[in-house]
Amino acid sequence: MTEFELIQRLIPNLPTNASVIAGAGHDCAIVDIGLADELLLLKTDAVVEGVHFTPETDARRVGHKALGRCLSDFAAMAGTPRHAMVTLGLPTGFDADWIDGLYAGMRHLAEQHGIAIVGGETTRNPERIFMSVNVTGVLPRNRVILRAGAKPGDAIFVTGELGGSILGKHLDFEPRLTEARWLAENFTIHSMMDLSDGIAGDLRHILQSSGVGAELLGRAIPISRAARQKARASLPGNGNLEIEVDTSSPALLAALTDGEDFELLFTVASADAVRLLDAWKQRFSTLKLSCVGKITANPGMRIQDKFGLRPLNVSGYTHFA
Amino acid sequence: MTEFELIQRLIPNLPTNASVIAGAGHDCAIVDIGLADELLLLKTDAVVEGVHFTPETDARRVGHKALGRCLSDFAAMAGTPRHAMVTLGLPTGFDADWIDGLYAGMRHLAEQHGIAIVGGETTRNPERIFMSVNVTGVLPRNRVILRAGAKPGDAIFVTGELGGSILGKHLDFEPRLTEARWLAENFTIHSMMDLSDGIAGDLRHILQSSGVGAELLGRAIPISRAARQKARASLPGNGNLEIEVDTSSPALLAALTDGEDFELLFTVASADAVRLLDAWKQRFSTLKLSCVGKITANPGMRIQDKFGLRPLNVSGYTHFA
Repeated sequence: MTEFELIQRLIPNLPTNASVIAGAGHDCAIVDIGLADELLLLKTDAVVEGVHFTPETDARRVGHKALGRCLSDFAAMAGTPRHAMVTLGLPTGFDADWIDGLYAGMRHLAEQHGIAIVGGETTRNPERIFMSVNVTGVLPRNRVILRAGAKPGDAIFVTGELGGSILGKHLDFEPRLTEARWLAENFTIHSMMDLSDGIAGDLRHILQSSGVGAELLGRAIPISRAARQKARASLPGNGNLEIEVDTSSPALLAALTDGEDFELLFTVASADAVRLLDAWKQRFSTLKLSCVGKITANPGMRIQDKFGLRPLNVSGYTHFA
Repeated sequence: MTEFELIQRLIPNLPTNASVIAGAGHDCAIVDIGLADELLLLKTDAVVEGVHFTPETDARRVGHKALGRCLSDFAAMAGTPRHAMVTLGLPTGFDADWIDGLYAGMRHLAEQHGIAIVGGETTRNPERIFMSVNVTGVLPRNRVILRAGAKPGDAIFVTGELGGSILGKHLDFEPRLTEARWLAENFTIHSMMDLSDGIAGDLRHILQSSGVGAELLGRAIPISRAARQKARASLPGNGNLEIEVDTSSPALLAALTDGEDFELLFTVASADAVRLLDAWKQRFSTLKLSCVGKITANPGMRIQDKFGLRPLNVSGYTHFA
């Protein structure tokens, strides 16, 4: 059984109540606890030694990643994180200096975004470091953006450049919190999520939630320098996607399928696309924004490349594969 | 380095902000996110296979315990839990039916208290199941109860009976949420916490936070049937306390030092003690409430037993011992 299958099996039976606006299956949970103008956002995520980092990884970067993954999910909802808690499972004889480094990495990122770390729990996990972070924060009531809002004709955008994050970005990425809030404040964002499993896999979640399809434009996909570098060296990606398209470019393949980009993927009405690109350049001159395709009424995912418009079939990232 | 030493080293450097009313070192964190009449409570806790349960433990009981531990911390603050998230680290080849049982146990307890489970995260932990639960909820603004409020002369109370929880209660305990809220609504509770490491160890946290001492009355300590049973069988406890008092009763020793009672420990002005005991009997006829001693201006912990009033020195429960 894969992670995806397990989650699909568990979700229908979870207890819920009237306060839940978005529960399991969203980037963050959204709940109404009675704030006048805001909703509460809840997120938990984990990093595990040997799975998300190696024993040799610099502790500060692990701390950055552990908190950053949650913040990227807050960005996916254009939310504002406020408070974090940390659960640490540690082997006996852990290195206290390494833990200091871990916290230094979290602290640096938390301070950048005004987040307080308000406690947590420490316990044993004999074989490896296991770290779970949960973050709470807020979202204006009138600005709920889900994966389910994509509409036929929407332009599909991604921030930054994709692929090859295993070469370093998966530890050093900047969660796109400021950018996401700016987008939500200035444009009608129909659907949004953060890229953790490669655009080819993640876009499928938007399509399925929204009941639509998409056409991607191969040459518009922003391929990162790391993806090209990795392709030249024939390094494996850090994604687990299997892609059934004969792409002649291993770098494009990496950009489509590598995991942990932690960029934003979103859709807006095509009528807003040009104004958005112009305004973005004014506001965020150093971060690329790319229109990579359009939403279609016809379901499924297709990619336009030099061979024509062809189906893009991927099987999702499975943590238990 | 013990868990306690690690936490003491980390806490002073945690990033904070003006919204934090109680951070690390409290049963729950208390933060102000702008609710008119309430504050937000945050808690995270973990259970790990081989540490908090064995591979043979019934999955439903593990689920009950995992969520129940957090709820017991909500009870310690007389708060109301509303939403939970679950992080699961699973070995490859996990048993999906066991996970169903785990969730059934959590669901049953969640539904009893009107809590929605709004998602979480699933990842790999190759050697054992690691489960972290976080819970958010609320507390009336005017009813913040901390460990730090004990005053000389206060009567010290505990709910239920203590010791021997390893024989079963550590998996089946009922978090004292209803009782705690009733206490907070009807009495001025000076200090409160939940008993997770034995009264002899936990009371020390109240004493240190409040800058006071205590005298316990040996014969007033409510010794559970399980503690007596365990004492007769000379079974080891599930606490890690070392107690420097020559108690002639192994059952009393178990009641003082065994972990995971998950009962309430609190103090009220002695003038309220009799009225409290009477009202409690009316309201909770099946759950014992015991006055076990008094707070003193003189620091340290003493116990009155048949040998007289003697110092009760314990070293705290250390998860990494």
